[in-house]
Amino acid sequence: MDKRMVSEVRVWLEEAAQFIRESLDHTMTVVEKSGRTDLVTNIDEETQEFLMNKIRSHYPEDKILGEEKGYNTIDSLEGRVWIIDPIDGTMNFVMEQENFCIMLGIFENGIGQLGFIYDVMKNELYWGGKKLGVYLNETRLTQPAFGKLSEGLLGLNAHMYGENTHFARVLGNKSMGVRISGCAGLEMIAMLKGNHNGYLSNLSPWDYAAGIVLLEEFGFKYSNLKGTPLSFDGREYFLAGSPETYEEILHYVLVNGA
Amino acid sequence: MDKRMVSEVRVWLEEAAQFIRESLDHTMTVVEKSGRTDLVTNIDEETQEFLMNKIRSHYPEDKILGEEKGYNTIDSLEGRVWIIDPIDGTMNFVMEQENFCIMLGIFENGIGQLGFIYDVMKNELYWGGKKLGVYLNETRLTQPAFGKLSEGLLGLNAHMYGENTHFARVLGNKSMGVRISGCAGLEMIAMLKGNHNGYLSNLSPWDYAAGIVLLEEFGFKYSNLKGTPLSFDGREYFLAGSPETYEEILHYVLVNGA
Repeated sequence: MDKRMVSEVRVWLEEAAQFIRESLDHTMTVVEKSGRTDLVTNIDEETQEFLMNKIRSHYPEDKILGEEKGYNTIDSLEGRVWIIDPIDGTMNFVMEQENFCIMLGIFENGIGQLGFIYDVMKNELYWGGKKLGVYLNETRLTQPAFGKLSEGLLGLNAHMYGENTHFARVLGNKSMGVRISGCAGLEMIAMLKGNHNGYLSNLSPWDYAAGIVLLEEFGFKYSNLKGTPLSFDGREYFLAGSPETYEEILHYVLVNGA
Repeated sequence: MDKRMVSEVRVWLEEAAQFIRESLDHTMTVVEKSGRTDLVTNIDEETQEFLMNKIRSHYPEDKILGEEKGYNTIDSLEGRVWIIDPIDGTMNFVMEQENFCIMLGIFENGIGQLGFIYDVMKNELYWGGKKLGVYLNETRLTQPAFGKLSEGLLGLNAHMYGENTHFARVLGNKSMGVRISGCAGLEMIAMLKGNHNGYLSNLSPWDYAAGIVLLEEFGFKYSNLKGTPLSFDGREYFLAGSPETYEEILHYVLVNGA
């Protein structure tokens, strides 16, 4: 069943990506959500609508959690839940017309089954799932070499690094270098490829759902900053990394206090 | 003459890029320069050597300023000077095997004539010069729309943002978002494409030489943080941006003190 579902979802994502690419030739509507730098466009909303319609027509029993338009809470993770970020990195989408992703995670009773992260402008779909492996388009990827915090690059949330929230700046300075991309999906990809050792941010479920399915398959570790499971309920601090990097950051945060 | 020189240099850069790409399949030697996070590899050095040999055999009268191996100072900018960064973003080269550039700027009596920024793994060469325009590979680019600091993304040096050096954090927070790529060449490209409104960092001549030739051709402004011309002599604070963004940042720094 997983294989058929993978094929279906890949077709939907191709169609969604094509819609997004074509939208770049037209004027889009950009609206502020919670503030000046929290944007949503009609393309975010229409892409989510497109994916929701596909899910509803093929899997009418399933539940959907999505970033836009009032689908951003869910009663429980019981049953099968599709978690959608139609455009992850909307600011990059608006400002750069690149460096953004479509993300989709499929969970069953709270356990990640399939994850899809689509770098739309690069035409790179990272996908995979429980016991399936991790793929870039048609190519199966090998698990990257893991390293310590001091041995690799660390992806960070800009605000956390700037304000040293939960020691983000101290921890960033222990790494080989801090990178800020403005797109959770690109940070997940950077870990999957072995480019970055870890990622520390403040995320909503649709920002991490697809990523953690793929990270788990490769043996990365992830949680909130208390070291307990992610809630899938609202925004929370998010830490992921190679086992060594994850443990070192979590230990530092726990020992030095919240 | 410029056109012939452009063709020559493009052939050299293709050859250098091919050498760098092939080097990724082999073990490289990585050595620390000024500290733990300031790296150089044998590929940086061999690429500079390759480009220097080309320049010397074709233009034996010209001077060369290059990042590696003792070519990093020059008596004066009189005559024609080639300024080379064989691998800009060496940390990314080592850690990511992508997100690094070859950069080459050609100056005559201190005035920029030609600039080349080659994103090696994307096969994207940004090049151009005085009255030539700016090109991506074979395609002539159009000057991007300019915007104010508050209207766009700002590329920043990680350390400056973290430490609020010269108000870098305050200024970053006035923008739509901070991006940290670890590669000056990629930041120059982001401005040329209209992705970012500005860039604030701490750079050496080979980090900015190629970029400022291309930025100038498109009407961007740039200088050190005193608002005076770059010295081409050692590391100094570097500011570039759309005219509005450049003026706003410079004004803020000058008014609020060094």
